[in-house]
Amino acid sequence: MYRNRITVNEDLLRERQKCTFDSKELTLWLDGSSEKIATRHELGNEFSLFVEDNFLNDPLLQDTVPAKYKSHKEIYEDAIRKGCIVLEKLEYLQSIGKSDMRTYMQSLGGMLGSAILKDGNPITLHFVMFIPALLGQATPEQQAFWLSRAWSCSIIGTYAQTELGHGTFIRGLETTATYDPKTKEFVLNSPTLTSYKWWPGGLGHTANYAIVVAQLYSQGECKGIHPFIVQLRDEETHEPLPGIKIGEIGTKLGMNATNNGFLGFENVRIPRNHMLMKNSQILEDGTYIKATSDKLTYGTMMFVRVVLVQDIASYISKAVTIAVRYSAIRRQSQIKSDEPESQIIDYMTQQYKLFPNLAMYFAITTAANWIWNMYNNVTAELHQGELERLPELHALACCLKATASADGAKGIEELRLSCGGHGYMDSSNLPATYGLVTASCTYEGENTVLLLQTARYLMKVWRQAVRGNPLPPTVEYLSNLARGTEQEPWDDSLMCIVKAHQAVAAGKIHLATQNMDRKIKKGRSPEDAWNETSIELMQAAESHCRAFIVMRYVTAINELTTVSKELHIVLKQLCTLYCVYWVLQRTGDFLRFSTLKKENVSALQSRLEEMLIAIRPNAVGIVDGFDIRDEVLGSALGAYDGNVYQRLYDEAMKSPLNQDKVNESFHKYLKPFLKSRL
Amino acid sequence: MYRNRITVNEDLLRERQKCTFDSKELTLWLDGSSEKIATRHELGNEFSLFVEDNFLNDPLLQDTVPAKYKSHKEIYEDAIRKGCIVLEKLEYLQSIGKSDMRTYMQSLGGMLGSAILKDGNPITLHFVMFIPALLGQATPEQQAFWLSRAWSCSIIGTYAQTELGHGTFIRGLETTATYDPKTKEFVLNSPTLTSYKWWPGGLGHTANYAIVVAQLYSQGECKGIHPFIVQLRDEETHEPLPGIKIGEIGTKLGMNATNNGFLGFENVRIPRNHMLMKNSQILEDGTYIKATSDKLTYGTMMFVRVVLVQDIASYISKAVTIAVRYSAIRRQSQIKSDEPESQIIDYMTQQYKLFPNLAMYFAITTAANWIWNMYNNVTAELHQGELERLPELHALACCLKATASADGAKGIEELRLSCGGHGYMDSSNLPATYGLVTASCTYEGENTVLLLQTARYLMKVWRQAVRGNPLPPTVEYLSNLARGTEQEPWDDSLMCIVKAHQAVAAGKIHLATQNMDRKIKKGRSPEDAWNETSIELMQAAESHCRAFIVMRYVTAINELTTVSKELHIVLKQLCTLYCVYWVLQRTGDFLRFSTLKKENVSALQSRLEEMLIAIRPNAVGIVDGFDIRDEVLGSALGAYDGNVYQRLYDEAMKSPLNQDKVNESFHKYLKPFLKSRL
Repeated sequence: MYRNRITVNEDLLRERQKCTFDSKELTLWLDGSSEKIATRHELGNEFSLFVEDNFLNDPLLQDTVPAKYKSHKEIYEDAIRKGCIVLEKLEYLQSIGKSDMRTYMQSLGGMLGSAILKDGNPITLHFVMFIPALLGQATPEQQAFWLSRAWSCSIIGTYAQTELGHGTFIRGLETTATYDPKTKEFVLNSPTLTSYKWWPGGLGHTANYAIVVAQLYSQGECKGIHPFIVQLRDEETHEPLPGIKIGEIGTKLGMNATNNGFLGFENVRIPRNHMLMKNSQILEDGTYIKATSDKLTYGTMMFVRVVLVQDIASYISKAVTIAVRYSAIRRQSQIKSDEPESQIIDYMTQQYKLFPNLAMYFAITTAANWIWNMYNNVTAELHQGELERLPELHALACCLKATASADGAKGIEELRLSCGGHGYMDSSNLPATYGLVTASCTYEGENTVLLLQTARYLMKVWRQAVRGNPLPPTVEYLSNLARGTEQEPWDDSLMCIVKAHQAVAAGKIHLATQNMDRKIKKGRSPEDAWNETSIELMQAAESHCRAFIVMRYVTAINELTTVSKELHIVLKQLCTLYCVYWVLQRTGDFLRFSTLKKENVSALQSRLEEMLIAIRPNAVGIVDGFDIRDEVLGSALGAYDGNVYQRLYDEAMKSPLNQDKVNESFHKYLKPFLKSRL
Repeated sequence: MYRNRITVNEDLLRERQKCTFDSKELTLWLDGSSEKIATRHELGNEFSLFVEDNFLNDPLLQDTVPAKYKSHKEIYEDAIRKGCIVLEKLEYLQSIGKSDMRTYMQSLGGMLGSAILKDGNPITLHFVMFIPALLGQATPEQQAFWLSRAWSCSIIGTYAQTELGHGTFIRGLETTATYDPKTKEFVLNSPTLTSYKWWPGGLGHTANYAIVVAQLYSQGECKGIHPFIVQLRDEETHEPLPGIKIGEIGTKLGMNATNNGFLGFENVRIPRNHMLMKNSQILEDGTYIKATSDKLTYGTMMFVRVVLVQDIASYISKAVTIAVRYSAIRRQSQIKSDEPESQIIDYMTQQYKLFPNLAMYFAITTAANWIWNMYNNVTAELHQGELERLPELHALACCLKATASADGAKGIEELRLSCGGHGYMDSSNLPATYGLVTASCTYEGENTVLLLQTARYLMKVWRQAVRGNPLPPTVEYLSNLARGTEQEPWDDSLMCIVKAHQAVAAGKIHLATQNMDRKIKKGRSPEDAWNETSIELMQAAESHCRAFIVMRYVTAINELTTVSKELHIVLKQLCTLYCVYWVLQRTGDFLRFSTLKKENVSALQSRLEEMLIAIRPNAVGIVDGFDIRDEVLGSALGAYDGNVYQRLYDEAMKSPLNQDKVNESFHKYLKPFLKSRL
C-alpha cells in the first residue's frame, strides 16, 4: 500500500519551522516547572515512557479490534478485563511509591483513562464516588471497616443517588429506608418505577456494594435523604441478593463502557450501622439526631465541579490539537487559481473556527486554576469553622462548570465540523470527545439549574451593592456599577474590554432584578416572577461568568513575567482574540450596557481578523506545546507526524467487515434477491 | 413490574384537553388536504395501517435485539437482510399500483426509512444517486441498457465521487481515466492514497457497480472530471474484480448501517461506452467533444439541496415532538414550595429551549415549500432554454441548505439537552437524530463553502443594485437599501421585523463589499481580499438567508385564510416567536443596521416571554398535529401515550447484558481480581 516513507508530513514540518516561539517553553509554562512536566509524564494526564511500558505497550491492553466495531456486551466484557489489569498495575505502581489515590482517580476518570480504557469504565465510580463518599459521610468506625475493603478492592462499590424520575432535585427522591427498631434494621423499598435508581456507573453488572441515597423514615416520620451502604450482590457468586432488582440501562450517546445501571429494592433489610452516620444519626430506638450543619456536604459537590472545569479544558486541548494539525495538512480548493490547493488553515473562515477555541483552552484553564486555588483556600477556612466565602465559591463553581461545559461542547463540535467529513469518522476521535464533554452539560448539576443558582446569588449581592454594602472579591466589580459610577469611554484596550464585560454583567443583573421586582409589584408571586425572569437571569449569570473568565485571563497574561518575549506575544494574541471574539459574539449586550459604540464595531472585527492572521503561523506550535501524546489523542487526524490519510486507511482496515472480501450476507440475502430480479 | 395501567399519561391527557385549537386541523393544514393526508399515511413520510401491516408489523423487520446493542458487522448484515425485504415489499406495492420511484427514494432515504432501516442503509444510494445519475448523464442508448437492470435491482450501484483527500473541490479529484484508442477502453487508476474514493454509501461490501467520477485523459491531455460506470464485483461471486481495491471506511458518529466504502483502481479497464456521454463525449479515436453547457449539471445538485431542506425540517419536527412531550411528563423541582414538583415545560428556561425550535420547524418548512416551487419553475424554464433564474436559485439553495442544516443540528442538540440525562440515552432516539442531521452540515456542499457561494452572488447583485440595475425577486429588497432609502422607524410589527432583517442583510453585504474593496485598494489581491473578508461575507449570507426565511414565514402566515381563527392565532404566535427570537439572537446587528433602538430591546424580550407563555398550553397539541407515529419517532421519551419511564425500562431490558444476572466477565476477570486482594 501507499505507506508514507516520510516520517512527518511536509506541511507540518514547515509549520513547525516557521513557528516564532519555542513550543517546549509553552509546555513548561503550562505545567509550571520541569519537575511538574516530569511528574505529569510519569503519573499525571500524560504517560511517561515508564508508564508507557506499563500501559500503552502492554499487549493485553491493546485493541486488535477497536471497541467501536464490537457489540455492547463485548465492550463491557473488555472494559472489565482491562479495568482489572489497570488496577493491578496501579497497585504495583503504588507499592513502589510511584502512585497515590489521586493517580487512581485521574487515571481512570480523566483524559488519560479514556486513552487506555476508552469510553468510560465500570470501575471509575468506585474511586471517584464510593470511596470519597465513605470518607466524607462515614463515621470513623464505619471507615475502619469499609475503607480498607474498598481501598484494597476486595469489594467494588458505586454511588446510587439519581433515580429514573428524579435528578437534580434530590429532595424529590422516592427510594425509602424505613427504620425498624424491633430488628434494628432499615428496610429499603422502591415504591414506584420512577424511584428506581438509574445512571450510576458500574451499577449494572460490576459493583457488589453501593452507597444508596434514600428518604429516611423513622418513628413514622420522613427525615429527608440520607446515605446507606447496601450490599447488592453475593461476594462469591455475584448473584443479586434477594429483593435487589438490578441491571444496566442500555446504550447512550457516549461512555458506553461505564455500565450505568438501574436498581430497585423490595424489602431489602440492612443493619442499622449501614447508614453512614458521620453527620446525622439514628439511635437504636429510632431517635433521629440531625446533623449540625449541612453546609459541609457542599464540599464534595463543589470539588467535583471545580475539577470538572480543568477536565473539560483538557478535552478542548485535545480536540483543538486534532483540528489544527489536520487543518495544516488538509488541502482544498485554491485561494488563487494559479496556486496549488491551499492548506485549509489558510482560509480565514477556518481560522475563525479553530483559533477562538484554541484561545478558549487558555481562558478556561486560567479560570480553572484560579478557582482550584480558591477552593483550597475556602476548604482550609472551612476546617477552621469559617463559612463566609462558601456561597461565593458555590456561585462561581456553578456558573463556571456550566459555561465551561457548554462552551467546551460547542467548541469541540465546531472543531469536529471544521474537519469536514473526516471529523464525522470515529477514527478522528472527535465524536467520542464530544460525547464525553456534552455529558458534562447535564451531570453534576444541569447547566441551566446551575446558572440560575448563580443568578440567585448575583441578585442577592446586587441588592447589597445597591445598599452600599461591601461585596466579596469575585463580585466586587458590581459595587461601582451598582452605585451608577460612569464608565470610561471605549478605547479598545484589553482592560477596557474586561470592564465592558463587567458592565454587561452588571447591566443584565440590574435589568433582571428590575424586571422581577416590576412583576412582583404587578401582583405576581415572587416564585412566578422569578420563573418569568429566568431567561434573563440565566443570561446574566453567563455574562457574569464570562466577565470573570475574561478578567482572570487578561490579568494572568498581563502579570506574566516568567516567559520569553516571543511566547508572551503569542499568549497575548490568543488572549486578545478571546476578548474580542466574545464582544463580537454579544455585540448587542455591549452596545446596550457598555460604552461600546456602533462606530467601534468594525474596528473590533478588523482586530479579530488581525489576531487570526497573527496566530496562524504559530497555531501548530501552540498545539504542539500542549504536549499530548498520540496515544492520548487517539486520532487519525491529529497525530504528531500528520500521516492523516494512511492512518484513516489503517483504522478502516481494522474493521472486521474488511477481513472478508465478500460478506456472508451476500450469499444469504443479497444474491438470492438480485437473482430473483432477473 | 410496574406496568402502567393507564393508557395515556395523565399530564399529557390534561395538556390535550386544554389545547385551544384542533390539532387535526393543523395536520390538515400541513398536509394541504385530506387526500394528501391519506396519501402520506399510505405511502409518504408516514405509514398507513396498510403499510404498517406490510412493514412495521412484519416480524422479519422487527428488532428483537435493537441495533445499538449489536456489533458493527452484525448491524451491516442485518441492514442487508432488511433492505432486501423492504425492496421486495416496495416492488410488490408498485405492482399493485401503490408505489412509485419517489416512494422508493423517500422510503429509504427519509425519516420513514430511518424508522424501519435505522441508521442508514447500504442500498439507499442505488436509488438516490446511482439511478438519478444514469438518468441525468447517460445517453439514451446507455440508459436503455443500464436503467432496466438498475430499476429491477439485478445490479446494485453507488456513486463514487469524493476521495480520501478531496471533497467539496471536485476539480481537485485525482482518480484518472485514460482513454486507450488501441483497445477503445478507459484505464482507471488511483495514483495516490489520497485519490482513493472514500465515503460512497453501499460501496464497502454491497454495490457491484458504481458511477465513478474521474479525470479524463485523452490524447495526452486532461479533459477534466467525467462520470464512468464501472463494474466493481463479479455478479455471481461478488468477489472484487482484478485491480479493484475495495472495503468499508469504518464507524462514524452516525449512519453506521450505510456501509460507506473506499475504492482504489489499479489499471482497471472499461469499454469506451462506459463513459456516461449525455453531455461530453470521447469518440473512438480519442477525440473529445465538450458538453455545450455545464449549467445543466447544476440541476441534480440543486435538487438534492432543495429536498434536503424539507428532510431537515422533518427531523426537527421529530426531535421537537419528543422533547415537548417529555417536558410535559417530566416533573422536577418546585416552582412554589407548597406545590408538587412542576412539569418541566412550565419553566420558562425550558420553554426557551423548546418553543423557538418548534417555531423553527414552521419557518424551515415554509421556506422549503417555497424553494421547491421555485425549483420546479426554474427547471421548467430550463427545459425551454431559459437559464436566467439559475444563479438566483443556486444562491438561495446554497444558503438555505447551510442555514437549515446548521440551525436544525443546533436545535436538535438543544432539544436533546433539554431532556437532561434521558436525552443522552440512545432510547430517546435524539442522539441518532442529531447524528443524521449534523451530517448534512457537511455533505452535499460543506456549509461554509455554500454560504460563501451565496455571498459571491450577493456581492455581485449588490454592485448591480448600487448601479441602479433591477434585481431578481429573492434579492430585490436590496435595491431600495442600496439606493440608501431611509428605513421606517421601529414599530415592533412583524412587517417591521422582516424589513429590519432585510436591512441587516443589506448592511452586512454593503459593509463586506466596502471592506473587500478597501483591502484591494490597499494592494491586496482580489483573492486575498476575498479570503480576509470571508468571515463577514459568510455572516452576510446567513443574514440574507434569515431575511428570506423570516419574510416567507411572515408572508405565509399573514396571507393564510384557509384555517380556523383558533389555529391562525397559534400559528401567528409561533411566527412572532421566531421573528423576535432572531432579533434577540442578533441584537448587535439590528442595533447597527436597522432602526432598532436600545430602548426597544426590553420590549422585545417581554414579547418573547409573552409568546412563550402563550404557546405553552398548546405545545403538546402542536406536536400532536405533526402526526408522527410512535414507530417513526422511535423514542422512549416521545411516544403518544407518554409512558416514558416504562419505555425507558423496557428498552434497557432488551440489552443482551440484561439477559444474564451475572456476566461471565465476573468469573473470568473480576472474581480472580477481587479475591487476590484479600
